[in-house]
Amino acid sequence: MQDDSPLVRRHDLDGVTTLTLNRPTHFNALSEEMLEALGGELDRVADDAHVRCVVIAAEGRAFCAGHDLKQMRANPDEAYYQQLFARCGALMQAIVDLPVPVIARVQGIATAAGCQLVASCDLAVAARSARFAVSGINAGLFCSTPAVALSRNVGRKRAMEMLFTGEFIDADQARDWGLVNRVADDEALDEAVGALTASICAKSAVAVRTGKAMFHRQLAMPLDEAYAYAGEVMACNMMAEDAGEGIDAFIEKRPPEWRHR
Amino acid sequence: MQDDSPLVRRHDLDGVTTLTLNRPTHFNALSEEMLEALGGELDRVADDAHVRCVVIAAEGRAFCAGHDLKQMRANPDEAYYQQLFARCGALMQAIVDLPVPVIARVQGIATAAGCQLVASCDLAVAARSARFAVSGINAGLFCSTPAVALSRNVGRKRAMEMLFTGEFIDADQARDWGLVNRVADDEALDEAVGALTASICAKSAVAVRTGKAMFHRQLAMPLDEAYAYAGEVMACNMMAEDAGEGIDAFIEKRPPEWRHR
Amino acid sequence: MQDDSPLVRRHDLDGVTTLTLNRPTHFNALSEEMLEALGGELDRVADDAHVRCVVIAAEGRAFCAGHDLKQMRANPDEAYYQQLFARCGALMQAIVDLPVPVIARVQGIATAAGCQLVASCDLAVAARSARFAVSGINAGLFCSTPAVALSRNVGRKRAMEMLFTGEFIDADQARDWGLVNRVADDEALDEAVGALTASICAKSAVAVRTGKAMFHRQLAMPLDEAYAYAGEVMACNMMAEDAGEGIDAFIEKRPPEWRHR
Repeated sequence: MQDDSPLVRRHDLDGVTTLTLNRPTHFNALSEEMLEALGGELDRVADDAHVRCVVIAAEGRAFCAGHDLKQMRANPDEAYYQQLFARCGALMQAIVDLPVPVIARVQGIATAAGCQLVASCDLAVAARSARFAVSGINAGLFCSTPAVALSRNVGRKRAMEMLFTGEFIDADQARDWGLVNRVADDEALDEAVGALTASICAKSAVAVRTGKAMFHRQLAMPLDEAYAYAGEVMACNMMAEDAGEGIDAFIEKRPPEWRHR
Repeated sequence: MQDDSPLVRRHDLDGVTTLTLNRPTHFNALSEEMLEALGGELDRVADDAHVRCVVIAAEGRAFCAGHDLKQMRANPDEAYYQQLFARCGALMQAIVDLPVPVIARVQGIATAAGCQLVASCDLAVAARSARFAVSGINAGLFCSTPAVALSRNVGRKRAMEMLFTGEFIDADQARDWGLVNRVADDEALDEAVGALTASICAKSAVAVRTGKAMFHRQLAMPLDEAYAYAGEVMACNMMAEDAGEGIDAFIEKRPPEWRHR
Repeated sequence: MQDDSPLVRRHDLDGVTTLTLNRPTHFNALSEEMLEALGGELDRVADDAHVRCVVIAAEGRAFCAGHDLKQMRANPDEAYYQQLFARCGALMQAIVDLPVPVIARVQGIATAAGCQLVASCDLAVAARSARFAVSGINAGLFCSTPAVALSRNVGRKRAMEMLFTGEFIDADQARDWGLVNRVADDEALDEAVGALTASICAKSAVAVRTGKAMFHRQLAMPLDEAYAYAGEVMACNMMAEDAGEGIDAFIEKRPPEWRHR
């Protein structure tokens, strides 16, 4: 029997768009169809000025178990694989390029491309029972594309240990290594995610969008270029109405009233 | 009533130059005048062969609260802001480019460009009660230039959490994330800074200066270039009188006598 | 009396090649002869398809105390030093370029180029009593080439603290900072190293070799290039017999049987 429910559910509330991977029976594997569904939702969010931040969540006992191995084995063709990994890489970069912050809400396991998805998000909150691995090596397939995102989140020896052993790390380890920001008791996970989204939504939308775009660009630059670029961005940010209001409010010791909520 | 005391006090003792931000009533904000005063002192230090290391300290309950927001609001002009952030960026790079190590001595709060100042120093010692934030986002102004320095000190998810939430981290958190080196009880802060400066002043001046310059340059290079450059620097360092004396002393199990103290 | 025992002992067991530095009376210093011996062994390993992973170990109370200072002082010539550091840098890069993972097994002290050797390995396991320093600064010689490897393992303020003070950190500190992966009680060091090598040897050889090469290359690339490269590598890895077998075994919930053991 086919599952006709949407692969990805979108829910909007007070500026927070939650995209929920919705194939729990398949551990939310990133099949071709799932990649297309999630990528499509991200494209729509990118054009939606009402969205203040995005949460990527998942239904069931796993956050995401990586690629759909059965589908991959059914298409034993190098060109097919190249296209598949290119599509997956484009999805991960779309998260980085999205105009608003993206938060991973992680429960259960996040393995291989599922771990890459967590690493690619700007922020991540994990349930205490969540576990993380880049376990392709156990199946003869080194997690090469997940390594790209993972090695930009954690130190290189830690990344290599995970990649060569395929072993799991728990949520506290993931936080101590910088793969996730916060760990919450399982039943308090939504509350912890809500604290982050509420904090972001209380800020000026133009300042948040300015910051998201500039942060990732400056990271790739040498120090002098990064400062030249950041200085121009910040001068432009200062000309926005919200910066004037925000600074005046700070000086007058009152809450700011942002133009766009 | 105008405050005629110097914006930055310079104090020299046994090779250690302490530059103290001296506008405690303004939380040592980096006004145009403060940037010029601190930048001027750094320029003079750069040309002073007697200086072995620099401590950046601050008077009062705050280390530094970032830019002078009132002055910024009084000049609502994009060209003005560009020049202001360019000047601030140049100051931060002058710290990196200074021929001797620079240590931040942090008490109270270090926010926005004040946090950037800590991140830009080579080393940092914090009082246990010190707190750190890149809080511009609370005033509608994303801390873009502070992000440049911060994201080169701490992992990217941690930097983004601080930048998007504007929340404070305490001194222990700052040390665990790599933003500061050591945390001391408030009343033992000078002692802890003194331990670092004494350690550096006990070394060969030529070796310390060699290291300061090469460290930052090699960081920006690919591995093979970095090794080629570092190898040349180290061969040159070996030809200095102090290296010969230092190695002989090590072999002979006696304290070295450096040429230049 | 001259020591005629080999400078580096090679031992092969079940795919694990252990290279043991064997000049304990000289704290296994990286003399010209030691660099040549270790470099030669690495060259042979690079061409040996039977090797699954390499352990770099050391005899005696020290892992490695860096360069041979007496030999260096006996050759007071800048061209000689340039050649020496170039050779040492080439050795460290040969570890990075080796087709299989390299694990440092660290007991006693690892100082200067000895600490660089640990930092250059893909993985490292330390005895609880092991200690690490880049202590050249104590002898008037800043550890410039060790800084290249160290600053690619630990955060920059931590690297600079070690480089400017020359002070030791213990094994737990080294693990918390990312310089080593695991710390074991001294008497359990071999067991801890064995757990890592056993984990790697249980994997597909082609997948491990694929990963080792791609990991270091992608680290140096901007994000989009890294994804393009990693995607091609992974598509190629999928066409290997082991990936098919590994994925089928995973789907069928049975242990995989790799083609090449």
